[in-house]
Amino acid sequence: MGQKVVVIGAVAAGPKAAVRVKRLQADADVLLIDQDNYISYGGCGIPYYVSGDVSDEKELRSTSFHMVRDERYFEKAKGVRTMTMTRALAIDRKARAVLVENLVTGRQQSIEYDKLLLATGSDPVILPIPGTDLQGVFTVNDLHKAIAIKDLIAKGKVGKVAVIGGGAIGIEMAEACKDLWGLEVSLVEFKSHLLPNLVDWEMADMLAKHLRDNGVAVHLEEGATEILGNDDGWVTGLRTNKRTIEADMVLMAAGVRPRSQLAREAGLNVSQGGAIVVNEHMQTSDPSIYAAGDCVEITNLVSGLKLFAPLGSLANKQGRVAGDNIAGIPSVFKGGVGSFIMKAFETSIGSAGLTLAAARAAGYDAAVSLTSPSDRAHFFPTQSVVCYLLVFDRRTRKVLGLQGFGPMGDGILARINSAAPLLCSGATIEDFNTIEMAYSPPFSSAIDVLNAAAYVAENICDGRMRAIDIREYLGYMHDPDSRPDWRLLDVRSVREAEPFINAFGTGRWLSLPYDEVRERYQELPRDKTLVIVCNAGSRSYEIQRFLDQVDYPNTLVLPGGMNVIRRLNVDWLP
Amino acid sequence: MGQKVVVIGAVAAGPKAAVRVKRLQADADVLLIDQDNYISYGGCGIPYYVSGDVSDEKELRSTSFHMVRDERYFEKAKGVRTMTMTRALAIDRKARAVLVENLVTGRQQSIEYDKLLLATGSDPVILPIPGTDLQGVFTVNDLHKAIAIKDLIAKGKVGKVAVIGGGAIGIEMAEACKDLWGLEVSLVEFKSHLLPNLVDWEMADMLAKHLRDNGVAVHLEEGATEILGNDDGWVTGLRTNKRTIEADMVLMAAGVRPRSQLAREAGLNVSQGGAIVVNEHMQTSDPSIYAAGDCVEITNLVSGLKLFAPLGSLANKQGRVAGDNIAGIPSVFKGGVGSFIMKAFETSIGSAGLTLAAARAAGYDAAVSLTSPSDRAHFFPTQSVVCYLLVFDRRTRKVLGLQGFGPMGDGILARINSAAPLLCSGATIEDFNTIEMAYSPPFSSAIDVLNAAAYVAENICDGRMRAIDIREYLGYMHDPDSRPDWRLLDVRSVREAEPFINAFGTGRWLSLPYDEVRERYQELPRDKTLVIVCNAGSRSYEIQRFLDQVDYPNTLVLPGGMNVIRRLNVDWLP
Repeated sequence: MGQKVVVIGAVAAGPKAAVRVKRLQADADVLLIDQDNYISYGGCGIPYYVSGDVSDEKELRSTSFHMVRDERYFEKAKGVRTMTMTRALAIDRKARAVLVENLVTGRQQSIEYDKLLLATGSDPVILPIPGTDLQGVFTVNDLHKAIAIKDLIAKGKVGKVAVIGGGAIGIEMAEACKDLWGLEVSLVEFKSHLLPNLVDWEMADMLAKHLRDNGVAVHLEEGATEILGNDDGWVTGLRTNKRTIEADMVLMAAGVRPRSQLAREAGLNVSQGGAIVVNEHMQTSDPSIYAAGDCVEITNLVSGLKLFAPLGSLANKQGRVAGDNIAGIPSVFKGGVGSFIMKAFETSIGSAGLTLAAARAAGYDAAVSLTSPSDRAHFFPTQSVVCYLLVFDRRTRKVLGLQGFGPMGDGILARINSAAPLLCSGATIEDFNTIEMAYSPPFSSAIDVLNAAAYVAENICDGRMRAIDIREYLGYMHDPDSRPDWRLLDVRSVREAEPFINAFGTGRWLSLPYDEVRERYQELPRDKTLVIVCNAGSRSYEIQRFLDQVDYPNTLVLPGGMNVIRRLNVDWLP
Repeated sequence: MGQKVVVIGAVAAGPKAAVRVKRLQADADVLLIDQDNYISYGGCGIPYYVSGDVSDEKELRSTSFHMVRDERYFEKAKGVRTMTMTRALAIDRKARAVLVENLVTGRQQSIEYDKLLLATGSDPVILPIPGTDLQGVFTVNDLHKAIAIKDLIAKGKVGKVAVIGGGAIGIEMAEACKDLWGLEVSLVEFKSHLLPNLVDWEMADMLAKHLRDNGVAVHLEEGATEILGNDDGWVTGLRTNKRTIEADMVLMAAGVRPRSQLAREAGLNVSQGGAIVVNEHMQTSDPSIYAAGDCVEITNLVSGLKLFAPLGSLANKQGRVAGDNIAGIPSVFKGGVGSFIMKAFETSIGSAGLTLAAARAAGYDAAVSLTSPSDRAHFFPTQSVVCYLLVFDRRTRKVLGLQGFGPMGDGILARINSAAPLLCSGATIEDFNTIEMAYSPPFSSAIDVLNAAAYVAENICDGRMRAIDIREYLGYMHDPDSRPDWRLLDVRSVREAEPFINAFGTGRWLSLPYDEVRERYQELPRDKTLVIVCNAGSRSYEIQRFLDQVDYPNTLVLPGGMNVIRRLNVDWLP
């Protein structure tokens, strides 16, 4: 027999590493330990199991060739031994042994290792509020809870659901409950926008509007203060700092924390945030012990700062690298940019790298280009508007992040996946200008949306385009009297401008179509700041360039134009 | 007035450069010249206009905000003068003047320039065979022909169409004629497979099968020898070296050649292939003269060789760079990898970089990884098999190219766009291993198809996986007696193996399910070469690893498994 490899945790990184080691070293004795009886399942599929897109939980635990990944499977097919329902209690690093307990029999034993992998995952955050132990209150972190949630809903015991947490899991669960089951769904997010660490507020606001349009009550800047129950111990509602929401079920999706108690107690280096510290080989501060998956933190390859990114895709990559190194292949995992994509009803939203907020917090001279082009050739019948936000550093011209919001499909994915490796390599706006995106009318535009976003960033960086901040624009539209020196200049067709003129008055909302500006620009007031408006922002930019050249320098472009504004939660649109 | 800029050619690169210059230099006098009256149109949209997806040709000439891009538009909206129906006859480099002729009036004039841009595009290849001048014979290179083609079809004058050329345009036109109009369509390609320079034969064969399944008669390795006509001068058929095809219309899509006569006659450097030679600033051998679009050749950023890639996406990028440089901004266009995507009925096919054939021709020690995974989480209901071919160099481990074939949608695009910038930077298999592809079950797998393709490439490079060449496998299946020392080892379920055992006999097609190999491998013959078969290739690889370790070294994996074989033109499948 070769080396003894013990892997603790058998969901994503753990099994990946275990089978990789066994494939590389036939004589290795590989043991996979988990405290659960369900192992090696697609945790990211839970919302789709609850929604019914995936009918049976077994599918989440099966291979693509329909074999259930249970103890027998790992033993027979992979040659990897497994111990389920077994909790690791302590690591004796000197003796190189793990003390484990069988949760069914209570029997404890010490298991020796040559190499140990900690793939202990993460724990859901349990809010420190009353009522979290009521019946009908769930976190969404394992398959048992998913089954229990779906079971309750399927039995007709749930009419109203309150979701705590506007991250990806909370939103996906809200959709699952609303879309297939038709439940009354409320979603409460403590911060000022959804997906707070993943996208900036404009993208989040578009998402929130779409959720609301699909019947989900979204409450932002609301903290859950108490979960209410009845005498039978069942949940009846959720109290926030602003309201009380009736609910037969409360889903707590308030984030996760690395599960690192075992590592900490064994004296391994653990970060302030509780994540196990590893090097590029996924090795902890003890060279015999590796860690991978949700329990570790990685390097953010844009900022160089630490990043806690509990994503199934990264867990698998880290598991493979850990497996390589355990088997003697010095593979490296350098870090990541947190590539992210999610479906929300009929839309998709994605991101990679830093948000504007994160970039500024990290000290960058950060700005954004906000664009709203057609996602494919504008003459192709399936084309649709898509919004992109490109975050860049004005000083170094480095691109720091990309976010996209648009129709459901793989279009946003195509740009996130394209940007991610470039973000890792410190690419500049000019690099993004020339990325060679594949073009054919059913798929894209001759000038791809990603190239177009970079063009706008370049124009901003070089001072050729001056954009108004969307928040400032919305503030002005709410209270036009606040800026008596401003005028809206609508360069769309007269027909498109008309309802706005009717709503805001000819004194405030000026109409001068794009192709008449060169002839008629002298009709425009020279003593006002003109906020130039079109549908996508590109005509506005061209007009700004022209007005600059004829000595009308006080103009601002509404970036992304009305395509953006129409997708936000605004109530003043005519 | 500032500098005089003359642009010859007003389809893609030309207009892009012209308006860019004008935006950057308000005082520039920019003149756009074209021999046609239709300018600035989406030529790549022609097949979709013919198919009816795009109802009016005006849409191909319009902006996203529905303004037709005609002379008036460029004048009024862009400040760019245009002369249409005007042909450039000669360049007087000393005098810095272009002699042009108005094709309507016949009037000639000399136009001075400070900077000249040649965006003269390409000419369709007219085959040197009899009958190309018959009525009903068309090339597919401009909007007039597109209108004439659609007009004839719409009037019911066409029942049978023969397409010459199995490149992208030929295939798109075949689909347009078949899918919407229900015509009888034959497609003839001189080379041994479709899209000959863009994909390798496996991908092309999948595409050919899909076209045939959709009713297009695909004839490969057939050269058109004569176009047949009746006494009225109308086409009646197409003769090839193998057959005669009845046809009321013949579409010649046999490729394009750079249109460079003007440049050559002016003494500018022109390549052997006829392309105008430019530097990274899109500058010709005369510093006052630039060139961009289909008339130039670029650097293949993978091989360093020259690349003729007449693509609308590149033309626009080159136009922008030319515009920048004309206006004094030293932008660069480094070259490309030929990112390509196309729709064919219900499928999409894409590529970037070098094919295996091109890589070997360029001297690389090239090999491929062929995979056929699910395009998204295999438990997600919309998942579908997709095939990828990753081309790499065994010596340097550099990835040289990527090809994909799968269902229609943006999934292949997402991987081509991700690979393209990495191909430009000389990325290795290991870089592709760790590209951070965004994951969520409705979009992708935790281990993305692109990462998985790289994993297989790594396993091949490191000698951990030995694959059989698909052609060799197909040859064997056609004549099993040719290799009496070979056996098929089917590691799928017994139920899946059964029809194959019935067809090929238990002596030849062995069944031993994946999860029973570790227990029963000694039943396998040691003196035979085992060709291991599953659906996607991954189980076969695992079994090869195991058999290596228990001293059964004579095994070969069928890469991509039956998922690949089922998509090829084979007639022996049970």
